[in-house]
Amino acid sequence: MTDQDIVIIGCGAGGGTAAQFARKTDRKAQITIFEKGKYPQYSKCGLPYVISGAIPKPSDLIEFNEEWFKKARIDLHLNTIVEHIDHKKQVITAKKQDGSVIKKPYTSLIIATGAQPTLPPIENILKNEKPINGVFTLRTLNDAETIQSFIKKDSNATVIGAGLIGMEMADCLHTKEMNVTIVEALPMILANTLDKELSTPIQDKIKENISIYTDHLAIAIESKDNNITSLTIKDKSTNETKKIPTDLLIIATGTKPEIFLSQQAGCDIGETGCIIVDNHSGTSVENIYAVGDCTEFKEYITKRPVRIGLGSITVRQAIAAGIHAAGGTYTLPDGVLQTCTSEFFGIEIASVGPSATVLSDIEIITGKHIGSSLPTYFPGGKPITLKMMINAKTGQILSAQAVGVNAAQRINTYATAILSNMTIEKFRKLETAYAPPIAPTLDVVTLAADIAAMKLDRKQRQ
Amino acid sequence: MTDQDIVIIGCGAGGGTAAQFARKTDRKAQITIFEKGKYPQYSKCGLPYVISGAIPKPSDLIEFNEEWFKKARIDLHLNTIVEHIDHKKQVITAKKQDGSVIKKPYTSLIIATGAQPTLPPIENILKNEKPINGVFTLRTLNDAETIQSFIKKDSNATVIGAGLIGMEMADCLHTKEMNVTIVEALPMILANTLDKELSTPIQDKIKENISIYTDHLAIAIESKDNNITSLTIKDKSTNETKKIPTDLLIIATGTKPEIFLSQQAGCDIGETGCIIVDNHSGTSVENIYAVGDCTEFKEYITKRPVRIGLGSITVRQAIAAGIHAAGGTYTLPDGVLQTCTSEFFGIEIASVGPSATVLSDIEIITGKHIGSSLPTYFPGGKPITLKMMINAKTGQILSAQAVGVNAAQRINTYATAILSNMTIEKFRKLETAYAPPIAPTLDVVTLAADIAAMKLDRKQRQ
Repeated sequence: MTDQDIVIIGCGAGGGTAAQFARKTDRKAQITIFEKGKYPQYSKCGLPYVISGAIPKPSDLIEFNEEWFKKARIDLHLNTIVEHIDHKKQVITAKKQDGSVIKKPYTSLIIATGAQPTLPPIENILKNEKPINGVFTLRTLNDAETIQSFIKKDSNATVIGAGLIGMEMADCLHTKEMNVTIVEALPMILANTLDKELSTPIQDKIKENISIYTDHLAIAIESKDNNITSLTIKDKSTNETKKIPTDLLIIATGTKPEIFLSQQAGCDIGETGCIIVDNHSGTSVENIYAVGDCTEFKEYITKRPVRIGLGSITVRQAIAAGIHAAGGTYTLPDGVLQTCTSEFFGIEIASVGPSATVLSDIEIITGKHIGSSLPTYFPGGKPITLKMMINAKTGQILSAQAVGVNAAQRINTYATAILSNMTIEKFRKLETAYAPPIAPTLDVVTLAADIAAMKLDRKQRQ
Repeated sequence: MTDQDIVIIGCGAGGGTAAQFARKTDRKAQITIFEKGKYPQYSKCGLPYVISGAIPKPSDLIEFNEEWFKKARIDLHLNTIVEHIDHKKQVITAKKQDGSVIKKPYTSLIIATGAQPTLPPIENILKNEKPINGVFTLRTLNDAETIQSFIKKDSNATVIGAGLIGMEMADCLHTKEMNVTIVEALPMILANTLDKELSTPIQDKIKENISIYTDHLAIAIESKDNNITSLTIKDKSTNETKKIPTDLLIIATGTKPEIFLSQQAGCDIGETGCIIVDNHSGTSVENIYAVGDCTEFKEYITKRPVRIGLGSITVRQAIAAGIHAAGGTYTLPDGVLQTCTSEFFGIEIASVGPSATVLSDIEIITGKHIGSSLPTYFPGGKPITLKMMINAKTGQILSAQAVGVNAAQRINTYATAILSNMTIEKFRKLETAYAPPIAPTLDVVTLAADIAAMKLDRKQRQ
């Protein structure tokens, strides 16, 4: 390979990884990254743990520093904003902090512009177009650093949004001995990750530590001297309102993809509002790739487009983009499984595959089992709930959710089953590893599958 | 179903589970179990933990007590030895402790007679045909109870055999503050579970706590007043001998299947010396099933016969036998994966699939990676070593071994891949669950696979 001139926009996990794999694939390619922020590749998923103190220093999150990029002969421009893509001439225009302009031609362009947090329509949330003091989203290392300065024992923290990041933040702020309240517009927590029958026991457990208002809208912010003092929330069913004293407000209600440049370059945007990419991370425009939170790809089971929102998928897309941009080949599976996990208030959760809502077109059978992490005779076993879904016609395994010890690794087993299009009849007989201090003879992983298999059997006999 | 008269020989995990599933399948069947010991179904795998005290009382190991069998209307005869099977008339003859004889006809017979520990040829090991005082094998609850009475802080315990049970026992005796020595005839520990490159670091680590002599034979026992005082061992390469002071000797060198009755009944015995069974646990004799440690079945990859020695497989065979004996259907996969795990001295190990030795006919490629349980930026990550093997021609995943955090659950992921005949190219792109406090973006599970995939790629390009 010669004369490759690879340009990457964004140096998050997507851009950084793409650069790394482009370099591995072509030792001689010219590789240039433009990053609008001041830090090179760091872990966004680690931000809550910087705030909780589990990760000692914000800079610990930097996975690859400037020195690393230099050694890899990757030309990294921090504090530099790409303003234009000329996809016909294959040139980008970027502006540095000092106002100087760079014009950089490319043979391949990788867009890794990510997403930005959205603010819900809350009265008085902005002052001079910026959130008022004490109101934050969490997306960057700067955000984490600023939030840290607002943490104060026994003062009041409110989190809007009970998704994974909201729950992680609530746990972190609770760890810092703040009085924590979560406000969620939906009638349940963790709606994108777990079914209600799994999330309700978690909600009940967490309520021992913090306050949770589900089915409530955040409607207004009260402040004094430009500092937030409380948040007014409204019960969606009764319309009653309530003021939650709030010194620190974290908004974790979602993000919108950064697609301005891609649209400008003519990349097709899909129904989720993100850049459509294929299984090599290619966009509709020749020689332009896109990866991460600004993209959409098909979900593995339904083949319907979903937004990419997980670091693990971004990294794989970036591997594909980097290798292809440098002339190699790396084909992603025919859809994403969306395997994910999190831990808060000492509870580990994980899921893989589409939720029941997404599967609404498919007749499904569920298998659910509450088992123990250890054999009944061995002290110290802890409950694990596992729920899985199969196609009621074919027996194909579609999705699974778990709450409890090693939920993540147990869900990885299901991820493997889904990726290999396994049916329930085969999977339920999987030999899982058994030893008294480690796992029971029959693990909850297959016991849940047994339930679904028996239901399927009854149905087929009808 | 009517007039089923199911007789089961042995009430271990195999016999007990078979009875349970026969009952689930046919509410009206007559079910009778004959067990030569005095306890109903208990966990043999839990015995070391009774000795260490992790399981408080020996009776805790009893998973299903006499009351349970009574409620399930299963006729359980303890302390009763089956002496003869008349497979033509379909009648067994059993003798009770009081000498009385039972003749019991059957429509289906399930043999779950297990295996007995073997004693290596050590001088003076027997006195009046029984091991001398202080010398034990570990197979029954009685064994565990007696061994307990020999445990004494700061006295000397020696374990012969560095397989899983030997290692577990060494850890348990070390926990009880005995001075522990392991003697192993092979040049490595854990030879049946891990390759040398994985077992050597474990051996080095464990040596901080106990003494290990590999490549040594136990040749003679010295005693005083019929109590063991030391064990003489011999270096296999130098022939040098050494006396190991020993107050308690545990022999964990293997077992031989109990096949006397089955041979009598005409059941085909295979090349491993065990009863040949099919994927319904059927033997070569009509209406006779066999399960557990007295049986052999094919290994999943090579389809060559292997002895069944794992509780998890026994239980699945027993489910099949119980259901079929009662007129139902339950088909086992086309071979066993032998997924297994153990933990000792704080180290978790696990493996699945045939070892490199067993795979000697197949050209293989290995992928090995030493990763961390957590992302590099998150404190507290611990090393995990994962080694996996693929078929060098087809890329099919054949086996995997792991040492470290959640080795068992990680190996379950490989077990799923093997059972579904997955190739490396698909598996390496598995999305595993990622969250900073739980697992890294790319887990060691797929990173090891990447290594093998790259080797395969290089080979194919040659």
